[in-house]
Amino acid sequence: MSKYVGRCLEIVDASGLDYRLNPMGTVVEGPFDEVLGLIARCHKAVAKDCDRVSTTIKIDDRKGASGELDGKVRRVEAAVGRKLRT
Amino acid sequence: MSKYVGRCLEIVDASGLDYRLNPMGTVVEGPFDEVLGLIARCHKAVAKDCDRVSTTIKIDDRKGASGELDGKVRRVEAAVGRKLRT
Amino acid sequence: MSKYVGRCLEIVDASGLDYRLNPMGTVVEGPFDEVLGLIARCHKAVAKDCDRVSTTIKIDDRKGASGELDGKVRRVEAAVGRKLRT
Amino acid sequence: MSKYVGRCLEIVDASGLDYRLNPMGTVVEGPFDEVLGLIARCHKAVAKDCDRVSTTIKIDDRKGASGELDGKVRRVEAAVGRKLRT
Repeated sequence: MSKYVGRCLEIVDASGLDYRLNPMGTVVEGPFDEVLGLIARCHKAVAKDCDRVSTTIKIDDRKGASGELDGKVRRVEAAVGRKLRT
Repeated sequence: MSKYVGRCLEIVDASGLDYRLNPMGTVVEGPFDEVLGLIARCHKAVAKDCDRVSTTIKIDDRKGASGELDGKVRRVEAAVGRKLRT
Repeated sequence: MSKYVGRCLEIVDASGLDYRLNPMGTVVEGPFDEVLGLIARCHKAVAKDCDRVSTTIKIDDRKGASGELDGKVRRVEAAVGRKLRT
Repeated sequence: MSKYVGRCLEIVDASGLDYRLNPMGTVVEGPFDEVLGLIARCHKAVAKDCDRVSTTIKIDDRKGASGELDGKVRRVEAAVGRKLRT
């Protein structure tokens, strides 16, 4: 499994878009079409030698937002009043 | 939004289960029933003062696995051959 | 795959809760704890002879709502002004 | 909500791709790029008058598969040995 995830992360890392890898997925921030195009390239890079590929995508599209990869986590920590495990 | 996520993270943090907060969610590791019970408590803590609550859960249940919050990320980094943004 | 999905649907069908099977999942309506308990039983019925089980859950919890399995589809058809493929 | 879902279903229905609407989402079958392009058009049609849009996508990409909107449901019913609620 890590082999295929690694293949995707090479593509994400090379995209120039900001991202954070976590144990259950990768969060990418960027313009809608760029992010969707990136996901398509990752999916196809796996599909080229797998008979069946399952991809789950959750989009949070907020007008004018940026810097949210750190911003969202920071706001939750501010609400709780201390550092959390990240 | 951060107010409700913060309320959930208080509960997660107090549960004793290991977790990692990320910009789009929180990953928790533990025995199936404990994790599901924790999710239920978080959901209800939000539902008590919201008319509509949307919760998305993705379970990866692997026999005998543990330490995967760090393990999964480390194996992807090993496959890529360098540190990634986490 | 159909074997495992079939095993889950036996459990769903026997639960007494209302449900609709679709090509990518099953939608169940009922009280929060009953629905979550049902999902847990389905997951475990598959996990008992699989080393790894992936379960995705999306909860839409709306205070006082019922009859939504038909209601939601009907409201979309009303908005569009005609029958849709279901 | 039905207003926005209805707007998406107009686009899906006009796309020529086969689909099934269910209470929690819509399942579309077709070539990868066509389906992803359709989802992008739906998302943007909602985003144009909403400040924040959440879209969840689950892709099951199976080489050479077609007719699966009915096929998947039929195989589950075959596994169970009777008609199920759809």
